[in-house]
Amino acid sequence: MAGGALLCTIAGKQYKIDSNTDLGALAKKIEVPPKVAAANRDVRLTKAADISGIRKEYWIQAEPVTWNPVPKRRDQMMGTSIKKTVGRTKVQAYAYRLYDKDFSKPLGPATIPGPLLDVTVGDTLVVNFRNTLPIPVTMHPHGAFYSNEMDGAYKGYWTDPGGFVQKGRTFQYVWECPEGTQGSWHYHDHGPLDATSVFKGLFGPLIIRDPDEPLPDREYFLAFHSFSPTFFPLKSMLSSINGRAYTGNTPTLRATVGDDVAMHVYGMDNDFHTFHIHGHRWKEPDGTIVDNKTFGPADSFRVRWIEDNPGRWLYHCHVFTHLASGMSGWYIVD
Amino acid sequence: MAGGALLCTIAGKQYKIDSNTDLGALAKKIEVPPKVAAANRDVRLTKAADISGIRKEYWIQAEPVTWNPVPKRRDQMMGTSIKKTVGRTKVQAYAYRLYDKDFSKPLGPATIPGPLLDVTVGDTLVVNFRNTLPIPVTMHPHGAFYSNEMDGAYKGYWTDPGGFVQKGRTFQYVWECPEGTQGSWHYHDHGPLDATSVFKGLFGPLIIRDPDEPLPDREYFLAFHSFSPTFFPLKSMLSSINGRAYTGNTPTLRATVGDDVAMHVYGMDNDFHTFHIHGHRWKEPDGTIVDNKTFGPADSFRVRWIEDNPGRWLYHCHVFTHLASGMSGWYIVD
Amino acid sequence: MAGGALLCTIAGKQYKIDSNTDLGALAKKIEVPPKVAAANRDVRLTKAADISGIRKEYWIQAEPVTWNPVPKRRDQMMGTSIKKTVGRTKVQAYAYRLYDKDFSKPLGPATIPGPLLDVTVGDTLVVNFRNTLPIPVTMHPHGAFYSNEMDGAYKGYWTDPGGFVQKGRTFQYVWECPEGTQGSWHYHDHGPLDATSVFKGLFGPLIIRDPDEPLPDREYFLAFHSFSPTFFPLKSMLSSINGRAYTGNTPTLRATVGDDVAMHVYGMDNDFHTFHIHGHRWKEPDGTIVDNKTFGPADSFRVRWIEDNPGRWLYHCHVFTHLASGMSGWYIVD
Repeated sequence: MAGGALLCTIAGKQYKIDSNTDLGALAKKIEVPPKVAAANRDVRLTKAADISGIRKEYWIQAEPVTWNPVPKRRDQMMGTSIKKTVGRTKVQAYAYRLYDKDFSKPLGPATIPGPLLDVTVGDTLVVNFRNTLPIPVTMHPHGAFYSNEMDGAYKGYWTDPGGFVQKGRTFQYVWECPEGTQGSWHYHDHGPLDATSVFKGLFGPLIIRDPDEPLPDREYFLAFHSFSPTFFPLKSMLSSINGRAYTGNTPTLRATVGDDVAMHVYGMDNDFHTFHIHGHRWKEPDGTIVDNKTFGPADSFRVRWIEDNPGRWLYHCHVFTHLASGMSGWYIVD
Repeated sequence: MAGGALLCTIAGKQYKIDSNTDLGALAKKIEVPPKVAAANRDVRLTKAADISGIRKEYWIQAEPVTWNPVPKRRDQMMGTSIKKTVGRTKVQAYAYRLYDKDFSKPLGPATIPGPLLDVTVGDTLVVNFRNTLPIPVTMHPHGAFYSNEMDGAYKGYWTDPGGFVQKGRTFQYVWECPEGTQGSWHYHDHGPLDATSVFKGLFGPLIIRDPDEPLPDREYFLAFHSFSPTFFPLKSMLSSINGRAYTGNTPTLRATVGDDVAMHVYGMDNDFHTFHIHGHRWKEPDGTIVDNKTFGPADSFRVRWIEDNPGRWLYHCHVFTHLASGMSGWYIVD
Repeated sequence: MAGGALLCTIAGKQYKIDSNTDLGALAKKIEVPPKVAAANRDVRLTKAADISGIRKEYWIQAEPVTWNPVPKRRDQMMGTSIKKTVGRTKVQAYAYRLYDKDFSKPLGPATIPGPLLDVTVGDTLVVNFRNTLPIPVTMHPHGAFYSNEMDGAYKGYWTDPGGFVQKGRTFQYVWECPEGTQGSWHYHDHGPLDATSVFKGLFGPLIIRDPDEPLPDREYFLAFHSFSPTFFPLKSMLSSINGRAYTGNTPTLRATVGDDVAMHVYGMDNDFHTFHIHGHRWKEPDGTIVDNKTFGPADSFRVRWIEDNPGRWLYHCHVFTHLASGMSGWYIVD
């Protein structure tokens, strides 16, 4: 989609979404689904769910954020300044932000990706979600077990309140994590404008841990995605990892020889990528040994090894144009 | 290939194939391969094969078909009319159609994809194929065991009669299904213009069942493909599942809680896709649990689960532009 | 990248690389990293490593090469001349070339891909590498175990001598192959201009054999890549296997019924591909039976079967536009 526009059909009319689009004005043309309209009149909506077992609860708000994918203004891998070439990179984006109980105060800045949801098999995951963006957005989890009302997906006429959370409204998602849901997952907006909002930053990592498996000593959650000129006033595509592009801006990962290291990787744009890391390889669940792995949009997986190789290593996508446009980072082992 | 043209080399000349191309006229420029010309003089060609064991026999004809990928004219996921946006979607396409023994009568309409070929390990699959299209086409199976003469592939000078079935001609394919061929497969045209004809609709599902495995209670065969402006007079790409685009037009799948449900998925265009379904996940053969899976052109796989989650769910490709251009559908569980 | 240009940032300036770019002039703008400059003054650099155990040693030179991806000027699959359609295909490319001990004499012509590096678990792989190209290049292996200094990767300020081998210079790479590195791998340039040089031919196959596994009777190493108009003065993309495009130019593979056949496949361009072979299928490590497999840039894998099906078969990428632009070949079984 680089440089082009996204075609979006709303209320029987087709709109071109590009970096100049007023999404709030566009969102007003979207009819409020009947179940959402009914729920908006129901004051009991955000009452806490009655849950047995262990309850892991989060308060998360969708917010506008000023975001710079290349804050250091340099590409350390190429040893060059980005300032003169890529130009201005500060953009107006969207983010999920973690708050304290009852949204009393933020627990940190709004970030791309959003906060890690970290639960274990057997837990009930409760996410109290508030939207302050001018468009209806949601949280849709991968991997977890959830009832139809809790899928956080816009479904036209059949949309449940959790699939269309309007500006200023709150919705409480309850997602179960029974045996059979363990894995490295993620969540993202699945509202009516998700093909725009996800690209503007509305996604984050989710892990459902297997209680029989030891915790790694070090772990990293890595979203491979992009900042596209379709959605931002950028000169060119910024192929990104966790909201940042170019080595030194993307996460610099660290470990020590002997560590049990896990990387949780997921894709969150329109492209297919590979995950490659220098000086290391891992055993796939089928027993094969690889050091490069293909994945697509919304795919997620974990790689894991016992660290045995000190040095300053690169990890990157092996699609050469993605690597050249920022999709790489340092992994430093002491 | 959206909006562009396919470059095709025939008899040492390069042709641009687009939605205006007269494929029949183009096909006349293709030299008839020598073994095909010889066989065309052999009246015994379509004599029934002498086969031991269980024989599963089909009569299938390649036909022109008037096809509407968006017959309901609406996108139920987005709750909007497609009429004003995507415009006219009725196209002249190609299809495989199922006939009764000896082509005595059609057993249903011509469809995209073509009829399911449903056999079990140990069977011999016999397909009596007749072509009424103005171009030479074939049937090329994946997964099955077949001798070189039965591969249904155009191979230039070395083409066998089954690899170049001209208008009005019939060919009997005999494909074996020994142990080691079990799986979810498909078939498609592999004639000299396959990079056009497959995109016009010449493909279908094939399953070779493992006799030691219980049948699912419900199963669906899902082709992820597209109707492209390269081959049809369309305003934009229609990302499709089983010949239809946009939720409510694509197959609405159904199941009941407790059902053993199988989905057989394959790719049949130029793109890579993912298969994602809401509210469900499945165990891969390597033991990992996933709810989203990458696949490429001609890849095929099966996912299977015991249904435990009632509701109206979306299944879709997670490439966001494919989702936005129609590659999604309903899965309704009672 | 077909027909376009690659954007490349060097010393804080952005350059468009296309088929007219003087890469040697461009390379002069790249600052020599400090550790490389220091090493260039150290005469002991190429002293043979002190290695215990079995040592497998190669002498390989990076060279310019005049290369014709379509030397037969015909596409045997389509039975047509390429001369009139694809036009002139002879290009100025880069290649790795195998030399005798101490670079005393070449052991064959420079080829795309480069020579096979063939070792067994337990070996130490020593590659004496000399560069005669006008740009700094390297050899970066996949799969093997190597210390940080031996990764053959350009890392800006942190670049080691093996990551920036300038014209006329030599570097000795020492890579270990302990248990856990077995597999079908490859190597490629990872210098500062790798997004160009790899596309010009700087890659090759690497296998680390498992000593407990019998050798196959026949094996082939197949790189799926492309010659792009971005980097060469070509009329259109040539989708290639082992440096050649179109059936009859790409490798014609041969086997005999009863042979234990292995194919080692890897991707080395910007695209995702599938590997498909007619008349055959294989068991994946997870137990599934497939005849078509998706892979991305730098992915590598092996498929293996006992040959049971004589004839003239096609193997090809199932992305239809890649197939139509040359990515297919013969597999002939007696």
